[in-house]
Formats: sequence, structure tokens, C-alpha cells
Amino acid sequence: MDEPKIEDPIAELITNYHELNSSVIEELDEEPSALEFMRFVARNTPFVVRGAALDWQATRTWSVDYLKAFLGDEPVNVAVTPEGNADAPTPYTSPQDGTTTLVFAKPHEEDQPFSTFLDYLTTQEHTPPDSESSPSKPKEIRYAQTQNDNLRAEYRPLFSAVPPSIPWARIALARDPDAINLWIGNSRSVTALHKDNYENVYVQVAGRKHFVLLPPVCHAAVGERLLRPAVYTRTLKGSATGEDGEGLKLMLEEDGEAVPFATWDPDRPGENATPYSALVQPTRVTLEPGDMLYLPCMWYHKVSQSCSPEGVCIAVNYWYDMDFTGPLYPLSTFVRSVSNQEK
Amino acid sequence: MDEPKIEDPIAELITNYHELNSSVIEELDEEPSALEFMRFVARNTPFVVRGAALDWQATRTWSVDYLKAFLGDEPVNVAVTPEGNADAPTPYTSPQDGTTTLVFAKPHEEDQPFSTFLDYLTTQEHTPPDSESSPSKPKEIRYAQTQNDNLRAEYRPLFSAVPPSIPWARIALARDPDAINLWIGNSRSVTALHKDNYENVYVQVAGRKHFVLLPPVCHAAVGERLLRPAVYTRTLKGSATGEDGEGLKLMLEEDGEAVPFATWDPDRPGENATPYSALVQPTRVTLEPGDMLYLPCMWYHKVSQSCSPEGVCIAVNYWYDMDFTGPLYPLSTFVRSVSNQEK
Ligand SMILES: O=C(O)CCC(=O)C(=O)O
Ligand SMILES: O=C(O)CCC(=O)C(=O)O
Repeated sequence: MDEPKIEDPIAELITNYHELNSSVIEELDEEPSALEFMRFVARNTPFVVRGAALDWQATRTWSVDYLKAFLGDEPVNVAVTPEGNADAPTPYTSPQDGTTTLVFAKPHEEDQPFSTFLDYLTTQEHTPPDSESSPSKPKEIRYAQTQNDNLRAEYRPLFSAVPPSIPWARIALARDPDAINLWIGNSRSVTALHKDNYENVYVQVAGRKHFVLLPPVCHAAVGERLLRPAVYTRTLKGSATGEDGEGLKLMLEEDGEAVPFATWDPDRPGENATPYSALVQPTRVTLEPGDMLYLPCMWYHKVSQSCSPEGVCIAVNYWYDMDFTGPLYPLSTFVRSVSNQEK
Repeated sequence: MDEPKIEDPIAELITNYHELNSSVIEELDEEPSALEFMRFVARNTPFVVRGAALDWQATRTWSVDYLKAFLGDEPVNVAVTPEGNADAPTPYTSPQDGTTTLVFAKPHEEDQPFSTFLDYLTTQEHTPPDSESSPSKPKEIRYAQTQNDNLRAEYRPLFSAVPPSIPWARIALARDPDAINLWIGNSRSVTALHKDNYENVYVQVAGRKHFVLLPPVCHAAVGERLLRPAVYTRTLKGSATGEDGEGLKLMLEEDGEAVPFATWDPDRPGENATPYSALVQPTRVTLEPGDMLYLPCMWYHKVSQSCSPEGVCIAVNYWYDMDFTGPLYPLSTFVRSVSNQEK
């Protein structure tokens, strides 16, 4: 790992950015007006509004029992992994030659009755770690995390408990949300560092989410690599809703196209670091129930979670298409091209 | 001049930008709201509003006679050059060794009675080119172009004829203008391609201005070079307000720090071109009296002018400090650093 050269434009970019921008997130006293929000969009800068969604019906009513009463045994899509590592860089050992490489691990996806899924989450959350070797150990990790507008699709009965759009975002961006996503998991799931081409308004409903944020200029710091895609598959017979993570096997997708993905984890800064990783000053913010986060397009984010006393973590987010006009998108591609050339 | 390499990130940047952004300027039907304006600021994208200032007192009343009646023989700062090339890259031939290099030519600056200055402009404009060899030829070029908030200083008596700020810009940017500048010249002056760290609202009052605009991502195309500063000086005796450009001599500023400046002129695309110049699609817009242009910060602009029937070209612009937070400013520095490394 070489030190960046003096007058290395990439090092200068990250350093300049941090000199001009605080890495402490801005906290607004109340929700912004459309114009105030647009100023943040223009600056591609995150903010948080504490308690802004405390009076949402979702925040007030979504207990585990309430949700069960509403959706019962309706089937919902669940992402299943052995380590809570859905869509994450993961070591894979080849059965052929025994070599280990990082691959992009996709979860096993299956439908489960909603109540079964919730019970699994809360039981696992309340199982003390030392009892996990018992035969009834809840081992595998489950996360409802389909980012396909699920709150207006499979979770539609719950949709009226949240606003159909965030007024200031809708007015400022002059569009409706492209997707409204519900996230239900427990503290075992972590969303690996990645970025999205969306303006994201993220609302915590129950439990807490811990965000680590890096601005788009940090591309050269995140160790993007082309990872072969792999997918977890259940191998134990009769375990369609198996309770045993040992049945999950990571299988390479033979014809899958390699996925460019960040391999650096700001919480393990020594691993997979690039010469630029040490220059990055991540922004960290924890959302409590009712808190709202504006996560600007193209920001890298890693998200982990803590549970409500009931043992779940629930959030809703609104994805608005980003604006690809203007200089920011081509400039981000440029940073990526120059950074990848350096390698 | 080498062709850019395939997969050259700089070529890709300029090409991507143009694929995503039209080079035809957007024309708004009426002045934008603060929020609508902020969307353009966020996209760092220019627009024009035709006729938006037609009912300004300035646009309605600023005839040459009216201006003279108002300011009379008050002294005003005038930039004097032999070719209308104030603050422009200009060939300079060394008296020592006869070599010619491009230097950054600053105008001779002097105070002139306002009426004298206006008479000079209009007389010159109305003098047919073929009579310019006559002994009374108005040869040198004069331009009132101090960009130091002159409309609230030396031209203060005229200030009430324009709004003190542009309401939508003031509200959106949450600041007052840093400078309000009056520009008075004739068709002989050209402002060379350059950029400013200001959000610029430019209002045409009399005559026409012809803008050529390039977005900030085009840095590698403009042939920025470090130019030695030089200044025009009157050498003929007794010519404090001399009428003879032959008295103007370009003198190197011995201790002057070199100025990084664009040397490519989109109107002479073959000269001083870089391998990237041919990729640029300039935006061209002519402002008629009453037209308003939003010229976003860091855009390159070259400006030439045509006169009103009276023989002058008059404009007022509002400079609002740009926001240095967010990614755009550090990214522009990055483009510049990478582009300059290529050289
Ligand atoms: O909540 C999470 O686990 C991840 C959220 C996320 O990646 C997003 O909102 O884009
Ligand atoms: O009007 C001109 O000659 C130049 C205008 C200009 O450069 C500006 O408004 O920044």
C-alpha cells in the first residue's frame, strides 16, 4: 500500500472536500421547506430531522402484534443469509482449488408467512448468544429488504400509516417517489457500504439504525473491485423455511456478470484499505424512532441496526430519482474512472 | 496535438456531460420562483428569461442623453486597450530578444469624465471603418468594466433604476449580491473566455451581448496556461485622455505573478486548441435589451457586444457569492488538477 503522492489529485480532492465540509451531520430543528431542502440537494449534503415522524401513524402504532394483526400469515419476501450479509462482499472458498476470493454474496430469497418471519426475528433477538449452540438455535439471519417499492406492493395494507410522499421532497424535486421501501430486520443484519442513484429520505419507525456515510468524492477510498456474484442456497432437505443457517451454501453464479462493489468497511479501516482510505472522515449518525435522514444521491452508506424492546428494527424510506443532468453525475463517473486508472 | 486516448477519463467526462445536457440554453417564459431557480443552481445550468427586465427603469430610460444628464462630467474608471482586449491573452514581443509569447494583458485604467467617455464610444461606433485612417480616427478601445460593485459606488446615482437584488436569487441563495456591476462599452470590446466563482444574473439594458458558454467540466478544453501579466501604458506625452491607441504600449509587470488563464477561443477553434477542445459543444446565447441570463458559477464565458442605435452597449449584472460547500468546487479543482497533469 503506497502513500498517496504529494499533489496527487485524488488525495487533494478528498482533503479539499473535507476542509470545506463538516463531517458532523447537520441537524434541522424541523422539517425543511421545499426551498431549504433544495439547498441541501444542491450541496449534495445530508441532514437529519430528529423526531420529524414521531406523529406518523406507523411510528405510533407499528408494534409486532399490530403488524401481525394487519398482515397475519401473508407471504413476504425474506432475504436469508448466515451472517446478516445480504448483498455484501464475502469470502468464498473454491471447492476446486481451495483458494479464497471476495465475491458479491446475494441472499437466499424466499417467501415466508409474515408472522413466522416476525417471530423468528424477535426470538433470535431475545436469545442470549451463549444459548445459540442449543439445538433450537435461531442461526440464520433474516431481513425483509426488497428495495422494490414493497410498501406499495406486498406490504400495501400498511401503506396508509405513512405519508404517500414527503411533501418538501416532492415539491422540491417535482416528482413522486420512485419507490417506498419497508425494511424489517433485527440487529444481526448489516447493509454493506454501497451507493444508490437516488435522493433518499429515510425514516426510522422502531429500533435504531446506525449510518456511516461517505460523500461521492471518496470513491478511491472504498476499494471498489469487480466481484463475482454468488448466491446463498438452501441445501438441507425439507428446509423451505429452515431454521438452520448451516443449510445455506454460497454458490457462484456461473454466468453472472461481475459487480463493481466497495470492499472497504469504514468500521474495519485496516482491511481492504486503499492509499486514500485514511483520508476519509466518515459521517456517523444514529436514527432513533421518528428521526428522518436525507441521504443525498451517490453517497456511500453502511447501515447497521439495533432493535426496539420488542426485538425488531423497522424503517421506511422514500427513493426519488436523482437528476442526471448537471455536472455531478458525469463528475462522479470521472472520479471513478481516474481512481480506477490509478490501480 | 494528440487525439485523446480511448477511455480517456477527461474525454469521457466532456462527452458524458454533453450527452446528458443540452447545449441549447433553456428559455423560461417568466422569471422563476426561488425554488425553480434553486433547481437550476443545483444543476449548475444556465437559463435565459427574455424580456424579464423590459419594465426596469434602466431599460426604459437609459439613453445616452439621459445618462449624461444624470452623471455629467463625473469621473468614471475606463479600461483602455488598443484592440478591445482588456484582461485577455495577447501576444507580446520581447524588445530584448524579439520572441513573441502570450501574456495576460490588463487594460490601461484611467478616470475620464463620463460624458467624454460616452461621446467617445458613440463616435467610434458611428465612424465607418474606412475613415479610421483619418487624423481624427478614434482608435483605442474604451470599456467601463470595473467589476467592483461599481453600480453601488461610482455609478451610485443610477442605482435606483435597477432592483437592489434579484428577488428569486436573493431568496434562493439566502444572501444579498456581493457586487452589482455596470458595463458600458461598444462593439469593439470583447471579454475573453474566463470563469468566475459567482452565481451571475446578467441583465441586458441597451444593445446586445453575445455569450459563448462552456460548463466547468470543460477545463481541459480551454487551454489554460500560466500567463505573465502585462499592462497597457500610455506613452505619448500629454495624452491623459489621448485619442490615439498608438500611444498604448504593453509592458510586462516585472514582479507580477503569472495568471492561469484560458487561451482557447471557441470562436477560433483551431488556435490554442487542446486535444479536448473539439469535444466541447459551446452554448451560445444573445441577450437583447430586457433579457436576463443566469450564468452559473464556474462556467466559462466569452462575451462580445453589439450596440444600440445610439452606439453603446449597456448591461448590469448581479454577482452572488457561490456556495463552496458540497462537491462541485472540490470536483472542479480535481478536473483542473487531472487536466493539468496530462499536459
Ligand atoms: O436500512 C438498510 O439496511 C439499508 C438502507 C439503504 O441502503 C438505503 O436506504 O438505500
Ligand atoms: O459583459 C462582459 O463583457 C463580461 C461579463 C462577465 O464577464 C461577467 O458578467 O462575469
